[in-house]
Amino acid sequence: MEGSVEYMKLAFRAARRGAGKTSPNPMVGAAIVRDGRVLGSGWHRGCGGLHAEAEAVRAARAAGEATAGADLYCTLEPCCWSGPDKKQPPCTGLIVECGIRRVFVANLDPHPKVSGRGVEALRAAGIAVEAGLRADEGEELNRGFFAYQRTGLPFVHVKIAQTLDGRIAAESGDARWITDERARREVHRLRAFYDAVLVGRGTILADDPELTVRLVRGRNPFRAVLDSRLSLPDSARVLNDGGRDKTILLCAADACGERIQALRLRGVRVMPVEGGLREALAALGGLGIRSVLVEGGSRVFSSFVREGLWDRLSVFVAPVVLGGGVGAVSGFSPQRVADGMRLKDVRIRRLGDQAVIEGERDVYGHS
Amino acid sequence: MEGSVEYMKLAFRAARRGAGKTSPNPMVGAAIVRDGRVLGSGWHRGCGGLHAEAEAVRAARAAGEATAGADLYCTLEPCCWSGPDKKQPPCTGLIVECGIRRVFVANLDPHPKVSGRGVEALRAAGIAVEAGLRADEGEELNRGFFAYQRTGLPFVHVKIAQTLDGRIAAESGDARWITDERARREVHRLRAFYDAVLVGRGTILADDPELTVRLVRGRNPFRAVLDSRLSLPDSARVLNDGGRDKTILLCAADACGERIQALRLRGVRVMPVEGGLREALAALGGLGIRSVLVEGGSRVFSSFVREGLWDRLSVFVAPVVLGGGVGAVSGFSPQRVADGMRLKDVRIRRLGDQAVIEGERDVYGHS
Repeated sequence: MEGSVEYMKLAFRAARRGAGKTSPNPMVGAAIVRDGRVLGSGWHRGCGGLHAEAEAVRAARAAGEATAGADLYCTLEPCCWSGPDKKQPPCTGLIVECGIRRVFVANLDPHPKVSGRGVEALRAAGIAVEAGLRADEGEELNRGFFAYQRTGLPFVHVKIAQTLDGRIAAESGDARWITDERARREVHRLRAFYDAVLVGRGTILADDPELTVRLVRGRNPFRAVLDSRLSLPDSARVLNDGGRDKTILLCAADACGERIQALRLRGVRVMPVEGGLREALAALGGLGIRSVLVEGGSRVFSSFVREGLWDRLSVFVAPVVLGGGVGAVSGFSPQRVADGMRLKDVRIRRLGDQAVIEGERDVYGHS
Repeated sequence: MEGSVEYMKLAFRAARRGAGKTSPNPMVGAAIVRDGRVLGSGWHRGCGGLHAEAEAVRAARAAGEATAGADLYCTLEPCCWSGPDKKQPPCTGLIVECGIRRVFVANLDPHPKVSGRGVEALRAAGIAVEAGLRADEGEELNRGFFAYQRTGLPFVHVKIAQTLDGRIAAESGDARWITDERARREVHRLRAFYDAVLVGRGTILADDPELTVRLVRGRNPFRAVLDSRLSLPDSARVLNDGGRDKTILLCAADACGERIQALRLRGVRVMPVEGGLREALAALGGLGIRSVLVEGGSRVFSSFVREGLWDRLSVFVAPVVLGGGVGAVSGFSPQRVADGMRLKDVRIRRLGDQAVIEGERDVYGHS
């Protein structure tokens, strides 16, 4: 039994149409094929909506196609369970009902209630199943989802906008504008893909940002702020604007209870955290936040990088030399360059006058 | 009278074949065209050799073509003078003899003995001349040559190899290897285009580099070292290897005379300089050095950038975060990002895992 790479690619193309809309669910795509003809395809359009397999079946039926004897290509293992929190019926049942003959899957679903049981259920019903077809593409597509399922921690993407000489602000704190409008729009687009953005208290004090996606269409992420003593001024935008119910203040476990109460009364979420950065991330994960875009400033960048609590790093480099000011990352300093943190899977692209350099943490390397 | 952009482009393509070989002369190309047919083209192959116009005439004759009545496309104004230091006869005479009807020129030759007189001589002989066709391309092609003719200072290209966070070495001084083999090969290729490379004394002490083009084919440049007190150790490679006659030590005007003598006896050139960096560049210019590649280290980079004594900046950014160490550029620090030095004509490309960000100094901007 051999699946066609082309049909799986088609399923992935469908899956990507859900980009930025499916969280906390992963992006999933499916295609139903018989005799070299695609009978229907579909993708998961958002949490609560039909699963990709059901969308593909619906599309095939709408086109007047019978699915009996067909192959199903599915980027993620079909689900096989029901429960009070689950909004859709198990896809394995639907697949059996439809008379599907063979199923090709890219990734197993790491969810503890699936994780191979979907495949087993199909096989038990006499359906041939092959898993692992273009598994790498699936891992990449839903990195945050997989990371979160495995570790309980959100996928962390650190985004730095800096000058050629690695400064994120002048000595005065001024950072307007290191990068141009195009880069800022790109950052908004990026935000729409993440469940939360995260900044330090200093960034709020310096820039009073809104941390929204107003320059593009999309969903505003949660806004997590590391504010251990809850000393942000009441006037901060993130504590006042219409989206303040999406503001999460991560504070020390012994932060002032009265202040916590006052902030909660405003509608702001406050999460006291016992421990450090890892525990703060775990707290966000506990809220169902699967992916975080870390946006600053210098101390926050340095902490995430130093502690290895990042998965992806994007650096927007503007063609400006400052010659001084606030360094993007500092406070740790190996004796040898070879012990620096080297990115893997490096991507380099141009965006306006900026270079964007992006890569993944090499978990087997020094970082 | 309207020249064809296409034929001028062809002349420029020819000119570029002399890249890295013509200094102190500029790259020049020429094409002879009649009735939409290229009769011959040529380029200046190196100092002392035929000028491009003569090469084009030779090519046309070798192909059995008569040049009478033809058009000549020439990237630089034809020369019109003779003298004991000049190795070739004036091209204007040759052009008249050949019966050329019209001449199209990209740039006037800034040489004080030409500078429009070549065009005048042709017109006086009844030849129609148009100057300025693709002049921008010519300026770009021979930027060093034009800059030197106008200011007496060499064209200065600052090349920095750094980490993502703007460090050129670890705190220990270790810099092996921030960039990879491909980037180093590219630097050697770059060196072959420059009359001299320049580094500070610290770079010699840290890396004891050879500063040659051994990884590629090409001509080794002069090696200028800023060493105000002539305190480089005698064991430094640049003072010992076979190319030490191409080593130029730029020292203070009051440097030790005995040391100067001893170094000169070794075959090393020593130039005492009254003044600062600008005067050091002028001294190199006085030796006929038209272009300098500045390669380090931190203090040298910072001085050139701070004093605005640079024309082009290339930064090779390796996908490594060090978190500390030696910053590429420092020691000046505007209060506002808008007062930073912004590059113009920015080019961004990928080289191996490095991003190369390159641009020109904006002489009308802040820098």
